[in-house]
Amino acid sequence: MKTSRNGTRRRKTKAITTAKAGLPPGSLVHVGAVKTDRPEITLIAYDENGIEESRFASIVESREYKPAHNRLWLNVHGLQDAEILGEIGRRFHLHPLVLEDILNTHQRPKIEDYGSYLFCVLRVFEYDPESRTLGSDQVSVVLGENFVLTFQERRTGIFEPIRDRLRTPLAPILKRGTDYLAYTLLDAVIDRYFIVVDQLGDTAEQLEDEALASPTPELLRTINLVKHDTQLLRRAIWPLREVLNSLLRGESAFFQQETRLYLRDVYDHTIHVIETLDAVRELLGDLMDIYLSAVSNRLNVEVRILTVLTTLFLPATLITGIFGMNFERMPLIADEQGFSVALAIMAAVAAAMAAAFWRRNWLRL
Amino acid sequence: MKTSRNGTRRRKTKAITTAKAGLPPGSLVHVGAVKTDRPEITLIAYDENGIEESRFASIVESREYKPAHNRLWLNVHGLQDAEILGEIGRRFHLHPLVLEDILNTHQRPKIEDYGSYLFCVLRVFEYDPESRTLGSDQVSVVLGENFVLTFQERRTGIFEPIRDRLRTPLAPILKRGTDYLAYTLLDAVIDRYFIVVDQLGDTAEQLEDEALASPTPELLRTINLVKHDTQLLRRAIWPLREVLNSLLRGESAFFQQETRLYLRDVYDHTIHVIETLDAVRELLGDLMDIYLSAVSNRLNVEVRILTVLTTLFLPATLITGIFGMNFERMPLIADEQGFSVALAIMAAVAAAMAAAFWRRNWLRL
Amino acid sequence: MKTSRNGTRRRKTKAITTAKAGLPPGSLVHVGAVKTDRPEITLIAYDENGIEESRFASIVESREYKPAHNRLWLNVHGLQDAEILGEIGRRFHLHPLVLEDILNTHQRPKIEDYGSYLFCVLRVFEYDPESRTLGSDQVSVVLGENFVLTFQERRTGIFEPIRDRLRTPLAPILKRGTDYLAYTLLDAVIDRYFIVVDQLGDTAEQLEDEALASPTPELLRTINLVKHDTQLLRRAIWPLREVLNSLLRGESAFFQQETRLYLRDVYDHTIHVIETLDAVRELLGDLMDIYLSAVSNRLNVEVRILTVLTTLFLPATLITGIFGMNFERMPLIADEQGFSVALAIMAAVAAAMAAAFWRRNWLRL
Amino acid sequence: MKTSRNGTRRRKTKAITTAKAGLPPGSLVHVGAVKTDRPEITLIAYDENGIEESRFASIVESREYKPAHNRLWLNVHGLQDAEILGEIGRRFHLHPLVLEDILNTHQRPKIEDYGSYLFCVLRVFEYDPESRTLGSDQVSVVLGENFVLTFQERRTGIFEPIRDRLRTPLAPILKRGTDYLAYTLLDAVIDRYFIVVDQLGDTAEQLEDEALASPTPELLRTINLVKHDTQLLRRAIWPLREVLNSLLRGESAFFQQETRLYLRDVYDHTIHVIETLDAVRELLGDLMDIYLSAVSNRLNVEVRILTVLTTLFLPATLITGIFGMNFERMPLIADEQGFSVALAIMAAVAAAMAAAFWRRNWLRL
Amino acid sequence: MKTSRNGTRRRKTKAITTAKAGLPPGSLVHVGAVKTDRPEITLIAYDENGIEESRFASIVESREYKPAHNRLWLNVHGLQDAEILGEIGRRFHLHPLVLEDILNTHQRPKIEDYGSYLFCVLRVFEYDPESRTLGSDQVSVVLGENFVLTFQERRTGIFEPIRDRLRTPLAPILKRGTDYLAYTLLDAVIDRYFIVVDQLGDTAEQLEDEALASPTPELLRTINLVKHDTQLLRRAIWPLREVLNSLLRGESAFFQQETRLYLRDVYDHTIHVIETLDAVRELLGDLMDIYLSAVSNRLNVEVRILTVLTTLFLPATLITGIFGMNFERMPLIADEQGFSVALAIMAAVAAAMAAAFWRRNWLRL
Repeated sequence: MKTSRNGTRRRKTKAITTAKAGLPPGSLVHVGAVKTDRPEITLIAYDENGIEESRFASIVESREYKPAHNRLWLNVHGLQDAEILGEIGRRFHLHPLVLEDILNTHQRPKIEDYGSYLFCVLRVFEYDPESRTLGSDQVSVVLGENFVLTFQERRTGIFEPIRDRLRTPLAPILKRGTDYLAYTLLDAVIDRYFIVVDQLGDTAEQLEDEALASPTPELLRTINLVKHDTQLLRRAIWPLREVLNSLLRGESAFFQQETRLYLRDVYDHTIHVIETLDAVRELLGDLMDIYLSAVSNRLNVEVRILTVLTTLFLPATLITGIFGMNFERMPLIADEQGFSVALAIMAAVAAAMAAAFWRRNWLRL
Repeated sequence: MKTSRNGTRRRKTKAITTAKAGLPPGSLVHVGAVKTDRPEITLIAYDENGIEESRFASIVESREYKPAHNRLWLNVHGLQDAEILGEIGRRFHLHPLVLEDILNTHQRPKIEDYGSYLFCVLRVFEYDPESRTLGSDQVSVVLGENFVLTFQERRTGIFEPIRDRLRTPLAPILKRGTDYLAYTLLDAVIDRYFIVVDQLGDTAEQLEDEALASPTPELLRTINLVKHDTQLLRRAIWPLREVLNSLLRGESAFFQQETRLYLRDVYDHTIHVIETLDAVRELLGDLMDIYLSAVSNRLNVEVRILTVLTTLFLPATLITGIFGMNFERMPLIADEQGFSVALAIMAAVAAAMAAAFWRRNWLRL
Repeated sequence: MKTSRNGTRRRKTKAITTAKAGLPPGSLVHVGAVKTDRPEITLIAYDENGIEESRFASIVESREYKPAHNRLWLNVHGLQDAEILGEIGRRFHLHPLVLEDILNTHQRPKIEDYGSYLFCVLRVFEYDPESRTLGSDQVSVVLGENFVLTFQERRTGIFEPIRDRLRTPLAPILKRGTDYLAYTLLDAVIDRYFIVVDQLGDTAEQLEDEALASPTPELLRTINLVKHDTQLLRRAIWPLREVLNSLLRGESAFFQQETRLYLRDVYDHTIHVIETLDAVRELLGDLMDIYLSAVSNRLNVEVRILTVLTTLFLPATLITGIFGMNFERMPLIADEQGFSVALAIMAAVAAAMAAAFWRRNWLRL
Repeated sequence: MKTSRNGTRRRKTKAITTAKAGLPPGSLVHVGAVKTDRPEITLIAYDENGIEESRFASIVESREYKPAHNRLWLNVHGLQDAEILGEIGRRFHLHPLVLEDILNTHQRPKIEDYGSYLFCVLRVFEYDPESRTLGSDQVSVVLGENFVLTFQERRTGIFEPIRDRLRTPLAPILKRGTDYLAYTLLDAVIDRYFIVVDQLGDTAEQLEDEALASPTPELLRTINLVKHDTQLLRRAIWPLREVLNSLLRGESAFFQQETRLYLRDVYDHTIHVIETLDAVRELLGDLMDIYLSAVSNRLNVEVRILTVLTTLFLPATLITGIFGMNFERMPLIADEQGFSVALAIMAAVAAAMAAAFWRRNWLRL
Repeated sequence: MKTSRNGTRRRKTKAITTAKAGLPPGSLVHVGAVKTDRPEITLIAYDENGIEESRFASIVESREYKPAHNRLWLNVHGLQDAEILGEIGRRFHLHPLVLEDILNTHQRPKIEDYGSYLFCVLRVFEYDPESRTLGSDQVSVVLGENFVLTFQERRTGIFEPIRDRLRTPLAPILKRGTDYLAYTLLDAVIDRYFIVVDQLGDTAEQLEDEALASPTPELLRTINLVKHDTQLLRRAIWPLREVLNSLLRGESAFFQQETRLYLRDVYDHTIHVIETLDAVRELLGDLMDIYLSAVSNRLNVEVRILTVLTTLFLPATLITGIFGMNFERMPLIADEQGFSVALAIMAAVAAAMAAAFWRRNWLRL
């Protein structure tokens, strides 16, 4: 069972696979699991006058399309078809390294300034409290002058509320630039972190109850897996801190002064989610102590049982021994009630001892 | 019982609730528990000439009011009525994000400069030594050119001494600007921290006594909960350090040179309270060692009891066995006093061993 | 006993008492234990021409005094009379916050530049190796253009050697400014730290011997108390590092270039005393491992005793059982020497086993 | 066996051997194991027009050679012949300290700017999952204006894919400068790190399974050896971080603006590999807890067996004792079925107890 | 024995002795153990034309001496005669604090710039693998314009190879300035560190073997002593890092540009030795886990022995009990072979159990 478990829930320490090693940089090969049946391209063109949504089955289809509004949000679900990305790259003049990073879904979160656009890699998490597994998808965002491109490995539904807000007639978001759209995308990702961190916190509290109730080495392994997951999450969120900080300091021209106030808010949320996550991690660290202490306690209980048993039987056995001696003259031996008296003495001694243990609470396991 | 306990005293690792996730920024929704029956608005207008206090039942009532003095302190208890906040926001030209942060009472402590006013979020703690629970309320302070606004979730009485000082005729505080008032508010919050930290320190010492007396896994859990509380407190105080430091360096124009000397004092107090808190946390960390050592010690004691018992009974049992053998010729067997002699030997051996244990202090549990 | 111990030797995590909370800043109330019968004022006036010492019973007495030399060192022992401080404050134009800090003897060490004088709070320690208690007093120093003021809670005798050097005719110290006097005071405080750290180191080594000999939970508590004391000491010394560093960088005009060379020496000593203290703390940290290992070892020894006992008695008891069986035909039973032979077998088996244990060193407790 | 193991797999904490101590700097002595039979010199001359490869048996042979293309990559395998290095040093004007560092294969990774060339020391690792040993070789790279020199202790095949890319006609790499070649070399080294880190991660997971199954002190030793290897790896990779960062900031003129974008990619990979390595190290750290918990658990199991045994036999033995007493009147004694009844009682008691244990899961080891 | 051990090998946490406390700064008193019979003064005068060595029995003797070459290296072994130092100080215009630091051999390593010379305190170590003791001597170096002064507590022979290099006719070192000589002295000290760190690493590996073989609390103490020694060493080396870094950044004019390249090499070595030392310290940290695990394991083994014994004897004892019962009708009792059959049953049960243990490997201690 252990092996199969390891099999289904492998630790996520694996780095870039060796298949990629040695290839020239910029080679467009999708590295990562294929998570959708086929890619899906959605284009939202909007400005203060309205919004127009289009969905393309293939990249060929989209070539003819001329948008009626001048702010574009192009979203791609599914990355297995490198051709689509190649075409988008050519049309938006993306650097080969950007395309490579989008396809290789094992990137660290980062924001890079390529002069005419900002490239941003994020990681979206999903926690399943049942199986206690943490899944993650890479979301790449390119923010240019009037366009936002987003690339996801599969539908996570994370940007759906933003699409709904765009669809609302006269929504304030329509009046603002694409930098504001990029901010709302970022905000949606961070909000998702709060949910996952809360779920991990709940799991940690369940594990605490289990550790007190039945401390098995298997439980310890589960604790370590969850600890590992929080670490994974932390490593994904931590770089955002610095990235947002650099955007706040105004190092990039892509965010307007007004939008930066909102970025400061996102930055606060990021710090907050990191602190909450750290509290969860502390909880998990303390769990180890609770676990080890519960194990020690069980040992104490078992030694105590042994002691109680020995204590209850040794005196009785001694008494049987005494009356089993072969002396010719022994008290009680010839007595009619001798046997009963002996049994009574044994029972009395055992009862007295049991009472003593009762008072010391030793009979409660 | 464990579940109910977990229920009444949940760990405070929860982040912003998911209800808020996905809403556009600046939506005025109160996030947090409602802690008062109905909001209460108090306005103190003061300057060197005097002071005037007003209390409004509703926000409508206050619209007509014209203050006679030119420094204003507006305080709101209870945040469930978003309308009040909306009106105050409009009248003092507060940014939507500020109003959102006031209503969402899960903010990290911070100070933000919005150009025409400083916005400051603080956290006020209350510790109940009986139930060993740490409660907290968010206090938001807005410091503008001649006004201070304070927003609290409920009455904590923390600012009452300051009101008393304002009410004292010719009090020095009346002659100083609203920046000095803001300083005294800050000082009152930090002074409260000292009290809470002292209470946590007392609890830690009680727990130490309990750990030595009866080390149960439940106690360990309590230790971890208190440790968690100190961590929570630390996370609330720590950001103040940097915030005060930036105010001291004169990055904000809202504090006059003279008031900054007092801010340096508050800064010193903050460092001091953090150091005291760290000492408490160390104490709690050491507690774990004391606890584990007490558990080990109890195991030692129990093994010792087992050893003592075995030692006292084994020789006696052996003697009964010897005289229980069926040899036809055995010494003492036919003797009149044989039985008594055998018992005497047993008692003597047991007494000698008990004496040996007594000297080794093994009979003391 | 535990309670009384806790009573006499309370942990020093207590912060500013709650009595002070809520008072306006600058209120002159002495916070801390009163350690002297009555305050004592000493004034030393000196320059290259000579020295004049005066002692005043009350502050009134000193008003008439006109010093003959132009460098002043005013020392006050005992701080319970706030009036004295008030007068000194007025005469030397000290800020109310300075006076407040002098009276409130729970300050962190610090140096603050008030423009026309430097204000410096230090902490002097005293260690009693017998009771293993660490006491501390606050020493406040004010360094002005031609005067040095020192305030102590009670006589510690720490500055006595400096007075002796001043009294020596033509001593070099008379020729130098008050900044050099301030340096010698600082140096005396740091030298005292070396002594206390050495005493703590000796205590740590004694505790190590005790841990190996008799690891009781009470000892663990003592170890933690000493650890706590080193932490306390470290927190008092650590801020000096930064403070001296800022003086060295020449941020303050009160120390002349020549005196700064000596300050660099004091800085080196401070680093050295911190490093030595850290070595002591490491020692105490390792002590925990030695303690726990000694506890484990004792458990091993006790289980071993149990095993030895069981091993020595079980075979003998089995033999008595064998000859206690009621078979009609049994060897040796009818034999004249049967009983003796049986005893001899028991003795032989026990002796053989004892020898085996002896060789394994199991009989040594 | 322990000694031989220590012998074959010595920890790699050894520093520069003492043979070198005291020699003047710049003495050309090869310090390190000789890993090849004889040195091998390969020269690749290339530019956008083509590529020419030459292989020299000795350094004398190469003196006559005039390359047809103006970008040179000179590679040396095997460093035991100091003469070769001396000649290369003279021809490319390398500083004696550079040559010394190339020969002494115990260098830390570093990049040094010598004005007319960059000198870079890297470490290439190889992990053998069977014997769980980590081997490493030093690779030195000198990057000048139009030439790259690489020095390796032996053939590792790490640069073979790059040679293949150079051999491809019209490959983009031919059109770029030697700084791009240096980047690809660096990239190849980092890619190798990913592979080694993955192998270490797999080993860590195997060790986890072993720790749960059979926690022996020998296993603990293995865990520590692997932990040590990860530490070794980390120390080799960590300096690259700073080095790449300084190259990125443009402190060196040897990398063109265009190539720096690629260096940023290498920098990202370096951070990524460090983070992955840290995850492996955490895993190994948690392993210790799992190991200790498994040991504790085994102790619990063994005490439990003892308790079960005692519990099953003590009542039966007591019953035999009771019927072994010598009372003249005892129930059942004269009964025909007495013996069987007694045995039945013993069996029943034992069975009842075994059932109780079964329900508590105590019979499962 | 414990006391004597503590006596002969005291921990080196002692700071400056209290004898010095309270003395005015610059008092020339030798603080530290006297390690040589009498001081020895050696003067080497050299330049590119040659070298002249002189040895003086007393400081008086040296007054007449006029060197023929213009670069001087004055070395003093033995510091007990403060008069010698006083004279040297006057002749080379050294600051009183420098002389004090040379005599007080408990300094931290440091480099101080006194304007016309650099003053440098180093610590040279010596490790005795037999007694596992680490000794250290202070070496003070003064580097001025054309002279180098070195002061050692006793002959350590550490500078002998440098003297040999100076004595070699036409050696390159003769052509270079005294800054290069200072570099070679520094290099010799660092090379010595490598040797000591290697010896500590060997000791750590021996201790690992001992911990696995026989984990006694005394061994733990030894482990902690060695850990303490590595810490001591680290504290001595660590400050060099910063010091060399500041020399490299060119903050001091005493090192020429050319020599700085060599200093960079020394800096690299320092980092390397610190990293190697850290690896040794990690090894020692892991040792604690191995030790504790070996102790746990031994407890397991001992409980197992107890269990095996109980298991082998309890069934046999029960059988003797059964046949010892006094039923009138019992099977086998009257049988001729009854006794032998009973013994055979006992032996068979014991053998079956022993076989079961054998298969579980429980009979191997």
